[in-house]
Amino acid sequence: LNRQIAALPTTIFTVMSELARAHDAINLGQGFPDTEGPHDMVQAAADALLDGRNQYAPLTGLPELRRAVADSNARFQGLEIDPESEVIVTSGATEALAASLMALIEPGDEVVLIEPLYDTYLPMVRQLGGVPKLVRLEEPGWTLPRAALAAAFSARTKAILLNTPMNPTGKVFSTEELDFIAGLLIQHDAYAVCDEVYEHLTFDTPHVSLMSRPAMRERCLRIGSAGKSFSLTGWKVGYVTAPAPLAAVVAKAHQNLVFATAPNLQRAVAFGLNKDEQYFRDLAGDMARKRDILSAGLRGVGLDVLPCDGSYFVMADITPLANGLDDVAFARMLTEEAGVTTIPASAFYDPSNGAPPTHLVRFAFCKQESVLQEAVACIERWA
Amino acid sequence: LNRQIAALPTTIFTVMSELARAHDAINLGQGFPDTEGPHDMVQAAADALLDGRNQYAPLTGLPELRRAVADSNARFQGLEIDPESEVIVTSGATEALAASLMALIEPGDEVVLIEPLYDTYLPMVRQLGGVPKLVRLEEPGWTLPRAALAAAFSARTKAILLNTPMNPTGKVFSTEELDFIAGLLIQHDAYAVCDEVYEHLTFDTPHVSLMSRPAMRERCLRIGSAGKSFSLTGWKVGYVTAPAPLAAVVAKAHQNLVFATAPNLQRAVAFGLNKDEQYFRDLAGDMARKRDILSAGLRGVGLDVLPCDGSYFVMADITPLANGLDDVAFARMLTEEAGVTTIPASAFYDPSNGAPPTHLVRFAFCKQESVLQEAVACIERWA
Ligand SMILES: CSCCC(=O)C(=O)O
Ligand SMILES: CSCCC(=O)C(=O)O
Repeated sequence: LNRQIAALPTTIFTVMSELARAHDAINLGQGFPDTEGPHDMVQAAADALLDGRNQYAPLTGLPELRRAVADSNARFQGLEIDPESEVIVTSGATEALAASLMALIEPGDEVVLIEPLYDTYLPMVRQLGGVPKLVRLEEPGWTLPRAALAAAFSARTKAILLNTPMNPTGKVFSTEELDFIAGLLIQHDAYAVCDEVYEHLTFDTPHVSLMSRPAMRERCLRIGSAGKSFSLTGWKVGYVTAPAPLAAVVAKAHQNLVFATAPNLQRAVAFGLNKDEQYFRDLAGDMARKRDILSAGLRGVGLDVLPCDGSYFVMADITPLANGLDDVAFARMLTEEAGVTTIPASAFYDPSNGAPPTHLVRFAFCKQESVLQEAVACIERWA
Repeated sequence: LNRQIAALPTTIFTVMSELARAHDAINLGQGFPDTEGPHDMVQAAADALLDGRNQYAPLTGLPELRRAVADSNARFQGLEIDPESEVIVTSGATEALAASLMALIEPGDEVVLIEPLYDTYLPMVRQLGGVPKLVRLEEPGWTLPRAALAAAFSARTKAILLNTPMNPTGKVFSTEELDFIAGLLIQHDAYAVCDEVYEHLTFDTPHVSLMSRPAMRERCLRIGSAGKSFSLTGWKVGYVTAPAPLAAVVAKAHQNLVFATAPNLQRAVAFGLNKDEQYFRDLAGDMARKRDILSAGLRGVGLDVLPCDGSYFVMADITPLANGLDDVAFARMLTEEAGVTTIPASAFYDPSNGAPPTHLVRFAFCKQESVLQEAVACIERWA
């Protein structure tokens, strides 16, 4: 068997969700909302099943969804995108990421990654023969160490994988940071794979896509996710926006990985992307309120909460409550004894790049406010 | 960019479907039914959207679908499968194939492939660093050349990729052929990736899975497809059945490729797999009638039709009508002048394994009988 793949651990999200289930704990681990997405979209998906378009969608996606993705790029990022040649619909952002990396990387190519990182990034880069160059954000402010980032680039750099709004930190990269990265990409003639699945989930600062910055249009692959933008994570509809020559290669990777995505879900997502700005404002406003409730609650029980401007997630420093336990032991204890499940943050670091921090856990706040309050109450009772 | 992927041609199915559209031709190229799948299944998928289970499905699939896949293995192949640890639900058979090959192959491993072959097999094996060893079936009977097959195996063979019922030939491998292959697998300690997406579409002979043959239970990954078994190719729900140690590695490949598949479609496919034998008999009977109508029609216009016992496809020898044109030129002419689209069979061969036959085209007969009759009439008028 393939030893590299066989050696992969089961994703921490599945491990912790199963632990939560076993202990009937409140699951603030895996990032998925505990309410449904917009009813009109779900109804649109159901209606679309019943009018006779259930055979293969086109390889790059239904025209109506590609157009909606292009329109959304224009509306929110001022990007002019050709729906015919610059949008590829995928089976979720995970597939979008796999196809984008496959399109770019050849064995030996270096890929710059920013820690803490989402758990498929490293194995996917390694599986393709890419050489990861890791740069670690500095807590507690999630500061980008610019000198270290510059030093991670070389003549062999093929791409940076940039996740903003960022999972697991909740960091939203500033325009200055993006422009610093842009300078490095130009200097080293490299690409950026921009994982922007939380693009509509920023709280105090707007999301700016690297692709919208000067000279970046031709160097970026932008990844979006209907699951995250519409609270329908199960649908697994994603999209890549990229300049035509790059998009053509992503399409060829997609052709052999999955080929196409369910037409009824694509049609419903097109409907969703065409919603007015109010929908997106409400989504972000609602999520900001959830962040505030959870953050205040966690502070109330004595945890240090790190800054969070976007995404579903906030990190907390467990030192005040952990009694010397590391994050993995603490997260297990919190599930078993307090009935609240989190993700130990060390899972988002590569130990070969230096010992990971062991004093942080990630909380997902994409849950009903009563659930967040109940979780805080559980921790309080336990502490 | 990745040169290997960039160099891939756009799949012939997309190329020919677009040509069909441009010329308003009857599309007997890409294999998808022109009627919908069972209405009760489509309704089940619509109902399932509306009851609040639209967040991530579990990584390996919903329990109800894994159980239905296991039951179907028992019912149709006499296989005892553990739904917990031996079934992985994927986003279609294409992803199932990609994940299975990723789980097995390391760079340098040899993979035995049988020509003519489905168009993702070769690029996927090569992309993983596998070394294809091609064995060509002999026309017009699609005979398996046993000595050549035996010679293709070596100490470096990791797996055979076996497609039965076979696309594009319509061949259904006999029990004797399967047992010959089984002997080679045992002798060389190799695995089989069994693409059995047409398992319910055989006409004159039952489908036997290699996995059901003696000593093959531990060496086979079986791939099935809801799209093909229920005439809903757009849904892209597939499944891999494999012994637990293999399934665990397939799950890890799946985790990074796609992660999960839409819950409502999974629930509807579970409903479909639990249908009684009559459904599956009717499906095959209906398809056999379509094969007969098309084959008789093609013979009537002077083409030689090759044997076909299963799948959606039949091959025809174009020599009597081609006027010296090769299959690619003939297929283009047939679209442009007769208004009927096929797939030139040379697309299913690797030229580096010897010049492909250029006198065959593939017809899909998974179309309404009136459409098949109209296609034949078009060819007749043109000829
Ligand atoms: C694909 S399961 C993980 C969901 C998620 O994005 C997260 O929890 O970080
Ligand atoms: C994935 S498009 C191809 C459909 C098919 O199986 C075929 O036409 O051979």
